[in-house]
Amino acid sequence: MSSYPRKIINDPIYGFITIDEPLLFQIINHPWYQRLRRIYQMAMAQMVYPGAVHTRLHHSLGAYHLICLALNELKAKGIEITPAECTAAKAAILLHDIGHGPFSHALEHVLVPGVHHESLGLQIMQNLDEEFDGKLETAISIFTNQYSKLYLHQLISGQLDVDRMDYLTRDSFFTGVSEGVIGYDRILKMLTVYEGQLMVEEKGIYSVEKFLVARRQMYWQVYLHKTVLAAEKMIVKIIERAREIYALNNDLKLNATLDYFFKEYYDMNDEALYNFCLLDDYDVMFAIKKWSNHQDIVLSTLCTALLNRKLYKCKLQTHAFDENEVDEKRRQLAMKMNISQEEAGYFVFTGEAMNTTYTLKDERINIISKSGIFTDISQVDDPLIHKTLSMPVKKFYICQFVYSA
Amino acid sequence: MSSYPRKIINDPIYGFITIDEPLLFQIINHPWYQRLRRIYQMAMAQMVYPGAVHTRLHHSLGAYHLICLALNELKAKGIEITPAECTAAKAAILLHDIGHGPFSHALEHVLVPGVHHESLGLQIMQNLDEEFDGKLETAISIFTNQYSKLYLHQLISGQLDVDRMDYLTRDSFFTGVSEGVIGYDRILKMLTVYEGQLMVEEKGIYSVEKFLVARRQMYWQVYLHKTVLAAEKMIVKIIERAREIYALNNDLKLNATLDYFFKEYYDMNDEALYNFCLLDDYDVMFAIKKWSNHQDIVLSTLCTALLNRKLYKCKLQTHAFDENEVDEKRRQLAMKMNISQEEAGYFVFTGEAMNTTYTLKDERINIISKSGIFTDISQVDDPLIHKTLSMPVKKFYICQFVYSA
Amino acid sequence: MSSYPRKIINDPIYGFITIDEPLLFQIINHPWYQRLRRIYQMAMAQMVYPGAVHTRLHHSLGAYHLICLALNELKAKGIEITPAECTAAKAAILLHDIGHGPFSHALEHVLVPGVHHESLGLQIMQNLDEEFDGKLETAISIFTNQYSKLYLHQLISGQLDVDRMDYLTRDSFFTGVSEGVIGYDRILKMLTVYEGQLMVEEKGIYSVEKFLVARRQMYWQVYLHKTVLAAEKMIVKIIERAREIYALNNDLKLNATLDYFFKEYYDMNDEALYNFCLLDDYDVMFAIKKWSNHQDIVLSTLCTALLNRKLYKCKLQTHAFDENEVDEKRRQLAMKMNISQEEAGYFVFTGEAMNTTYTLKDERINIISKSGIFTDISQVDDPLIHKTLSMPVKKFYICQFVYSA
Amino acid sequence: MSSYPRKIINDPIYGFITIDEPLLFQIINHPWYQRLRRIYQMAMAQMVYPGAVHTRLHHSLGAYHLICLALNELKAKGIEITPAECTAAKAAILLHDIGHGPFSHALEHVLVPGVHHESLGLQIMQNLDEEFDGKLETAISIFTNQYSKLYLHQLISGQLDVDRMDYLTRDSFFTGVSEGVIGYDRILKMLTVYEGQLMVEEKGIYSVEKFLVARRQMYWQVYLHKTVLAAEKMIVKIIERAREIYALNNDLKLNATLDYFFKEYYDMNDEALYNFCLLDDYDVMFAIKKWSNHQDIVLSTLCTALLNRKLYKCKLQTHAFDENEVDEKRRQLAMKMNISQEEAGYFVFTGEAMNTTYTLKDERINIISKSGIFTDISQVDDPLIHKTLSMPVKKFYICQFVYSA
Repeated sequence: MSSYPRKIINDPIYGFITIDEPLLFQIINHPWYQRLRRIYQMAMAQMVYPGAVHTRLHHSLGAYHLICLALNELKAKGIEITPAECTAAKAAILLHDIGHGPFSHALEHVLVPGVHHESLGLQIMQNLDEEFDGKLETAISIFTNQYSKLYLHQLISGQLDVDRMDYLTRDSFFTGVSEGVIGYDRILKMLTVYEGQLMVEEKGIYSVEKFLVARRQMYWQVYLHKTVLAAEKMIVKIIERAREIYALNNDLKLNATLDYFFKEYYDMNDEALYNFCLLDDYDVMFAIKKWSNHQDIVLSTLCTALLNRKLYKCKLQTHAFDENEVDEKRRQLAMKMNISQEEAGYFVFTGEAMNTTYTLKDERINIISKSGIFTDISQVDDPLIHKTLSMPVKKFYICQFVYSA
Repeated sequence: MSSYPRKIINDPIYGFITIDEPLLFQIINHPWYQRLRRIYQMAMAQMVYPGAVHTRLHHSLGAYHLICLALNELKAKGIEITPAECTAAKAAILLHDIGHGPFSHALEHVLVPGVHHESLGLQIMQNLDEEFDGKLETAISIFTNQYSKLYLHQLISGQLDVDRMDYLTRDSFFTGVSEGVIGYDRILKMLTVYEGQLMVEEKGIYSVEKFLVARRQMYWQVYLHKTVLAAEKMIVKIIERAREIYALNNDLKLNATLDYFFKEYYDMNDEALYNFCLLDDYDVMFAIKKWSNHQDIVLSTLCTALLNRKLYKCKLQTHAFDENEVDEKRRQLAMKMNISQEEAGYFVFTGEAMNTTYTLKDERINIISKSGIFTDISQVDDPLIHKTLSMPVKKFYICQFVYSA
Repeated sequence: MSSYPRKIINDPIYGFITIDEPLLFQIINHPWYQRLRRIYQMAMAQMVYPGAVHTRLHHSLGAYHLICLALNELKAKGIEITPAECTAAKAAILLHDIGHGPFSHALEHVLVPGVHHESLGLQIMQNLDEEFDGKLETAISIFTNQYSKLYLHQLISGQLDVDRMDYLTRDSFFTGVSEGVIGYDRILKMLTVYEGQLMVEEKGIYSVEKFLVARRQMYWQVYLHKTVLAAEKMIVKIIERAREIYALNNDLKLNATLDYFFKEYYDMNDEALYNFCLLDDYDVMFAIKKWSNHQDIVLSTLCTALLNRKLYKCKLQTHAFDENEVDEKRRQLAMKMNISQEEAGYFVFTGEAMNTTYTLKDERINIISKSGIFTDISQVDDPLIHKTLSMPVKKFYICQFVYSA
Repeated sequence: MSSYPRKIINDPIYGFITIDEPLLFQIINHPWYQRLRRIYQMAMAQMVYPGAVHTRLHHSLGAYHLICLALNELKAKGIEITPAECTAAKAAILLHDIGHGPFSHALEHVLVPGVHHESLGLQIMQNLDEEFDGKLETAISIFTNQYSKLYLHQLISGQLDVDRMDYLTRDSFFTGVSEGVIGYDRILKMLTVYEGQLMVEEKGIYSVEKFLVARRQMYWQVYLHKTVLAAEKMIVKIIERAREIYALNNDLKLNATLDYFFKEYYDMNDEALYNFCLLDDYDVMFAIKKWSNHQDIVLSTLCTALLNRKLYKCKLQTHAFDENEVDEKRRQLAMKMNISQEEAGYFVFTGEAMNTTYTLKDERINIISKSGIFTDISQVDDPLIHKTLSMPVKKFYICQFVYSA
């Protein structure tokens, strides 16, 4: 029996995921990648869907599995993709979420204000590339859409990429919400390349339709579920309050890596990046446990509430809330809790929940007919798709804390 | 539409779990129960099976769902069970794992030496009972097997209880290991009561056979998988080392609740219990993250290794390892790492892995024939069951750290 | 162990289906019900989806299972339903498809011209009612919507009935088309009754949306798939040709029950009904096998083609086909096959494929809000539902035989 | 977009099955292969498991899918398999059941006495080979185990072949019996070749163990379920009685292809083979429907009983039945039904049910260790496997008709 370097990983969705290239092992074994094992894929969704505790590591392995299938499919259709390009695309998808911090989207822009996870991801990849002697060069070029074969980038980041395919499938699986099930295997079978662009064959149109509808439903039923939203806003408010306290006295009683990110100003220089790569959900959750005894009543109340699942009462609607009524609620709570009107803003507030699905302008799903003519999906003569794409993507929410002395 | 107090929870395995009684809400909303949300059901199994990140809370909700089905089934067969008994049985199963601490079985007896999770659980239930004005009395009496209807205890804790049925089903689901799939629904349909004892109808014999084989396979393929074992032994060694350090200087640089459990001696008095009920996986994992920079080389090496998944190399075999060879390995590693022979014991060691499935003496699966004669399953004329029950349940393991300077 | 009359049936979708009432056993054991075992649920869909060979019997057992769940749900919500009403509703759903003949919808109105399967079903139920000493009276009254509690009829036959819920779920399962998966368990949990009408609670709106979209997708991707359509039109043409031949010489060389239905005229009297209840897919398929050697070239060609899966080439489009072009194709084929222009009409023809989902006027899905106000779903402020409901439901098709001498 | 000849088929188990070679299309499109669409995979099992109506065609497509996976796996491990060999192996598995007649195993040796389906299959393949200009030569050589690379034959027909893997998986899926679920994907990942023989890597041992146990359970719980056995024996008795009647008067009132096989003697010459290839379940079931009105009371009673699911009462036990008691039962029934003692033998009879799993001598499962040493699985130090392999495989049954005038 010949020896070969290969590892198979059990996945409850796809069965087995196979890793069989040295560079991919190198990535997966890196502490920065292993860190993703300690970051929830769905942040606080587990407060509503107890099964939704899968990790960023698991999702990126899943997306990697799908890109393997997609690349095989394209090659079987005669598209020429070199082994080096395959490896690079696989490396890029493994690393596509490497820039996520604790609680992923929920704390994005909050813990590291003003920095998007993709830009952080790029910085991390460049660091890794140096450590790996330039072996990630092509992967980075694909990731940043500078590689000549555009479809490789589109597989990783586009309206119908393996990222979305995996997270819809995986989130639907772990939450148990059947509404999000998509026919990822059928879509993969329908992929092709035409004039350098990723396309879907015409007969895959119903699967794409299903994909768009499923995605929309996952947004409103899961990602922006009112109680999930409430929990995620609570963790945001906790960090905001902590920042405020830190600004006053430079101490959060943590004495931990997390402190670094409360400093008034820092560049995302190498020191910051290395510190960032030490963070995961455990740091934040430990801080919350610690702060549940903090002397600041706002901070400790929020932390205790989150730990014990006493979440905000949240309501969503299609029009804005009356700010006078909101003010009044805030005033009443301030009195009840004996805090300032300003502090009450941590307990009663409004905002907008966005279904960010279709807002990116430069990405589109291309459909190709048998005759070789292609169109963007928004031009396709299918009223359901048309409608789904043009539907309102914003709702207004109010969060209110239910105080009991 | 009449209003009714009811909550349904999405479960990826059973579809929906329904909670519809005030006492059950009271339990679920209690901070001590919510704590189970932060404890992995399978400790370190996620190092091998990335999907195995489900929680104790999720498992206890699942077991609760199964007992609802079982009680309905028995009632449909004419067994008289009062509403109060149903509620008590449901409360008991919801709370059956309340005594688990961080990383469940992996750190049992390690973090709180000499105390079994069931005895801790009982203490916690008694505290809750007081808080709930005695409403848990019957539940506790069922849990401790002092209630007159023995079968209610057997549903909760016996060879074929809903606890085992849920964890086999759930662990198999989240790991993706199909070998552990059991026909829980068929077994539930086959349950009955005879002379006050829980029985399985004769035609359910193949499902029971399947259950026993599945359970045995999950032990060797998952729970005692060599790499899972390696990871769990590593976390044990970390706590042991920390305890040793604390004994020397009473300081672990944590300044956290966890410190309490490193004190040389404490009773499991109310103070200890309240502290215990504050702990979860986050406390331990945060400590490990912190200690990865500890000045003690043994502690920091183990912590860093666990975080980055540089686990012991582990080997299992049916006979004991040669202690001379083990000593030699230890000696070599001590030299390499420049540590003492004793300290090397944290990096090279042996032990016994037990499949604890069938060791409890007083629990058995009773089979009842159509004619009303019943026998213990070990007496059943089925050689596969007979064999499975009598199979060796112990393997010897060695764990070795792979040191690279 | 008390004896009780109960049977559990394995179902790959729902796990187990329980039968536990004498009347239901009586129905299931009746030869007319067992006949459904020999009728495909999806007619010729198995030509495209090889797994789609499940039967009308299986579907009606599945729908029965769902109504058991629905009735339990409603009772748990405080709706008063007597045991006798439960039994009647269960009997009615078991029998709801008893009027289907060979190849279900595909040959409806073809084998027994002008008679709908529901009217046949009613006649059969009335016969059974007599045989069962009037025990089906309430069931029939529910089936025909003459029973006072309207929601019982709506459970059986309405926009959101257990019939549709089972067939979407079942057809999706057996075809492997994930697009048709609906959250039947969630919808069932959301059912309630208000002012005697079946309602869906407001928070079930996304599940209903999903249900409508899934249904639409199953129509176009499965039920009206061009190749399924081709196969079903072929079997229709076979029966039509056979009828034509019989009209000429009163002989189809079958000497079988099927002959009865080629007679020029018959009433659906008791004799006809008894004969109808002897028919199933086997009669039609055997006839096709026999006729594959018939001297009539049209009949034998069609029969051989169907058996060997040489189906029409079928095309669907949103506008009508040019009849001149169709005529020309027909003319050419007539020449090639050396048959008359009229006979060529069996090999080249056009028609309209209807998605009959939403055409029934008097059925609607009612949504009830927490405040107790209810609206029809078409009034709901959800653009996707609105669009789905108002979408075009008709396509034009052409079928052409590919002749090779 | 390049055009390519490829077809994907939806499979509810594996997702999609891809056909992409001209020879494979040629096979699948052949009328003799399409015939498998009309033969139940599990004969009469649907009388107990209503979902078990899948076909031989579906199973052979499934086994084909698994061999594609297996071949890819072996090639990925460096085993050299030429494209021509791959095609041949795929053709061989597609055709491995082509020799099955109506109701598969149930009527094997009954409809065509003394001829095994594999020998018929070989004859059919040879005919096809001629029709296909010798393109099946290698496939036949693999099928008959005359090809130099033995492992190719072992993949198709051995203790751990893709045939068994698919039918266990598929039968378990369609019946809903979770006990038969095997980890086919894990087993496939563990396959390798050593010294020309198919091997399983050592770490796959638990999956093989599971496979053996699952197989044994499917035998007793499904394939030899007492009611399945009863139904299959009933169809056997029907054919036997028909043969007896034909022997007397050369007429069965069928006037159909099936008559051919009641002739007293025929060689399996080409005429017989062509006739055989016209038969499927429809011929037999139609005959049974027709004979339900036959003047012979034995034949018509059996046929009516089967159609209406009034099956024999069947009992299984580990020791033989007392023949005196059986005679007495037969005598009584003869009186009751007013038939001869001999005729009563069609209504009361005994026999042996065999679990034929492990009786073939020359096939074995080879296990290979990391060190390259291999052993037969029966030598493996695993008591469960050892026991399973050596377990009794025979039970005695009695079938009795329940007559009601």
